[in-house]
Amino acid sequence: MKIYELGPAPSARRVSIFLAEKGIEVERQHIDIRGGENLSEDFKAKSLNGQIPVLELDDGTTICESVAICRYFDEAYPTEYSLFGNNALEKAQVEMWQRLVELRGLLVAMQAFRNISGIYQDRENCIADWGERNLDSA
Amino acid sequence: MKIYELGPAPSARRVSIFLAEKGIEVERQHIDIRGGENLSEDFKAKSLNGQIPVLELDDGTTICESVAICRYFDEAYPTEYSLFGNNALEKAQVEMWQRLVELRGLLVAMQAFRNISGIYQDRENCIADWGERNLDSA
Repeated sequence: MKIYELGPAPSARRVSIFLAEKGIEVERQHIDIRGGENLSEDFKAKSLNGQIPVLELDDGTTICESVAICRYFDEAYPTEYSLFGNNALEKAQVEMWQRLVELRGLLVAMQAFRNISGIYQDRENCIADWGERNLDSA
Repeated sequence: MKIYELGPAPSARRVSIFLAEKGIEVERQHIDIRGGENLSEDFKAKSLNGQIPVLELDDGTTICESVAICRYFDEAYPTEYSLFGNNALEKAQVEMWQRLVELRGLLVAMQAFRNISGIYQDRENCIADWGERNLDSA
């Protein structure tokens, strides 16, 4: 089992924080995002969204999307208290708050960063006005 | 138990399709989005994101975010096969695909619609160039 990641990226950190809370150690392999390693055919064959992090199981099955990876570990390594909630209401509330923080916080900050910083100009059509609108609402 | 919704809205339909698959009937109350009923203090007290759909339980607890509502019903009314998956790998794969479709399909289409159609001009700073970029990638 291995996780392909760029350690400091928010989505990779999200998985790392989750694993630290669960006390699970997993082998990591660094992917050079700035160098475009995530755009290679090899990487895209592992990651359906072309992004890190990706979890590769011992049988070669791969899972992308950070929350999907967290959910795998929460289910495969059960502890007394699940980080996703322990009954219907808790599970719904965890999902609700996760989505609120993600859609109204993380995604807004990410869109401001991607469209204003200039870092993504070599691979995306950056719309500065959209970045500024997100910055205003962050 | 009651669901506040605007029936044809994609997020409300998502819950309705899920409930139809589970065979669960829930009372509905129509919210007039175009008339701004979702912007009222009464509604915002029920919905943390100010949007429909919202599930209100009999004790007054409310849950917003369509996937959180679906997860509540999946857990509170268990059937032989969960629509969110029946083991760690299935649950991770359902989460992965749901997010891929949502972030790369639904969200892209929604951002094109909201920023180009003009319908949201009375309540949002619409950025046409961002709408067009999303339309190009949809």
